[in-house]
Amino acid sequence: MARFFGTPDGVHPGQFFIDRRELHDAFVHRPLQAGISGTAAEGADSIVVSGGYVDDEDHGSYLIYTGHGGNDPNTRRQIADQSPDAPGNAGLITSMIRGLPVRVVRGQHKGSPFAPARGYVYSGLYSVVSWWTRKGRDGYRVVMFRLDAIEDQAHVEPAPAITPDPEFRTAVVSRRVRDTAMARTIKELYEYTCQVCGTQIDAFEGRLYAEGAHVRPLGRPHLGEDAAANLLCLCPNHHTQLDVGGMVITDDMVALNAGSDAPIAQLRWRKSHRLDLANAAYHRTLWLAG
Amino acid sequence: MARFFGTPDGVHPGQFFIDRRELHDAFVHRPLQAGISGTAAEGADSIVVSGGYVDDEDHGSYLIYTGHGGNDPNTRRQIADQSPDAPGNAGLITSMIRGLPVRVVRGQHKGSPFAPARGYVYSGLYSVVSWWTRKGRDGYRVVMFRLDAIEDQAHVEPAPAITPDPEFRTAVVSRRVRDTAMARTIKELYEYTCQVCGTQIDAFEGRLYAEGAHVRPLGRPHLGEDAAANLLCLCPNHHTQLDVGGMVITDDMVALNAGSDAPIAQLRWRKSHRLDLANAAYHRTLWLAG
Repeated sequence: MARFFGTPDGVHPGQFFIDRRELHDAFVHRPLQAGISGTAAEGADSIVVSGGYVDDEDHGSYLIYTGHGGNDPNTRRQIADQSPDAPGNAGLITSMIRGLPVRVVRGQHKGSPFAPARGYVYSGLYSVVSWWTRKGRDGYRVVMFRLDAIEDQAHVEPAPAITPDPEFRTAVVSRRVRDTAMARTIKELYEYTCQVCGTQIDAFEGRLYAEGAHVRPLGRPHLGEDAAANLLCLCPNHHTQLDVGGMVITDDMVALNAGSDAPIAQLRWRKSHRLDLANAAYHRTLWLAG
Repeated sequence: MARFFGTPDGVHPGQFFIDRRELHDAFVHRPLQAGISGTAAEGADSIVVSGGYVDDEDHGSYLIYTGHGGNDPNTRRQIADQSPDAPGNAGLITSMIRGLPVRVVRGQHKGSPFAPARGYVYSGLYSVVSWWTRKGRDGYRVVMFRLDAIEDQAHVEPAPAITPDPEFRTAVVSRRVRDTAMARTIKELYEYTCQVCGTQIDAFEGRLYAEGAHVRPLGRPHLGEDAAANLLCLCPNHHTQLDVGGMVITDDMVALNAGSDAPIAQLRWRKSHRLDLANAAYHRTLWLAG
């Protein structure tokens, strides 16, 4: 992918920048004018929060962010409807569906206690956790996004209240899996088609959703690799079964119900992709008596 | 449900208890002997971590916890295989699949820097994020669990290192949705059957998995209610579509593809359950031009 997601090497959350040119040169936010950097096909990689929209809310660890369009630059009021198909808005929707991290830059403005006194501050990585449309304060339809700071990847000053939105935090867990770059590559290779059942989920107007599933789990104690040879492209239903012990993969690449030994399906493959048999075998030992 | 999940009223994470009788009386951990309180049907509501198993690891914010059985109480060594069907182990597996929170109690022992000097400390709520089996250090098969502290619901002293397991935290996001009590009620009413497609996911040996999906979203800015009239029982695939704008619900209770207007299915209903039309209407305005 041409577009770069994540924090550029040598940049740290909390870092200050004098102007949009410096943000551009540091690969933090490439456009010199637009507030959202992104397209429907690639997703959005960065936004600038600068109080340009009356419907924006900055809560520090999460933002309610108005999409692009229909805004009078002089009065900052909405003068027309916004569309989810405008490139920046479409990019943020794609970032939500694909689980792509978004760099958040705060610019000087009066509306936010988290904005810098002047210039710009790079606030680190946020996830787009939801989007919706509604009539804005000025009576026109706006496209809204909620972005949550990704733990350990963001820096907000002053520190926001510890539980700014307890209702949301305790009750709602976004199901979108935060992908590794390798998982994204595998999902694109399969065009978001589940290797077990062939399902393609239409997440929004033709944007497809699938998940990169690690066969030998990442992290302790399993320490599986984030590599193509350890990844499958699955729908959420089959990813759930793979992760909790309901489905194992045989050496013949058949997905089996781990409890009943009944075959679920022969896995579908693209020529350039192969699962390491050792990862399938490790995964089987997790659920089947050896 | 007879079994109580969550922190009992009047008890706080970090609270000390003299002995197992006090834990019992405070409804923190009911069994006086067993380390795991739970059954396959109901899930496990609490565990005591007391260093009884050589394969245990206590990292503070997460635990690698050995299941019940096959252990010689005098030598603390494994003398037989463990089974995922033993009641406590089966209960923890159910808790993982159902997204039930587990009360963690730490008892005095030498193996953990987070254990109290004497007696017991209630450490708050943890999620079972994975389970697996393997040959333990003593050569017998053990059933293992990883439990992660639920943010804001747990108390660990001394505070563990901030990123004890960065690989796991950045790369693996558990897809199990942390349910509200009302969501659990709805899922049980439908016997874990998706109201859109009728799918029942076999998560492990007949344990079924589904998700409670709020139609008008919880949290700011939507402030949907956690009530039966705002909940559906869905498979992860259709929950994803509902949450990201790929599917809306008509007043006739038909699930429609929001982009193409093509019907996906007529929703299936149990007699005692009804969706509030206002919630379906609110949800439609989030994705469709008004």
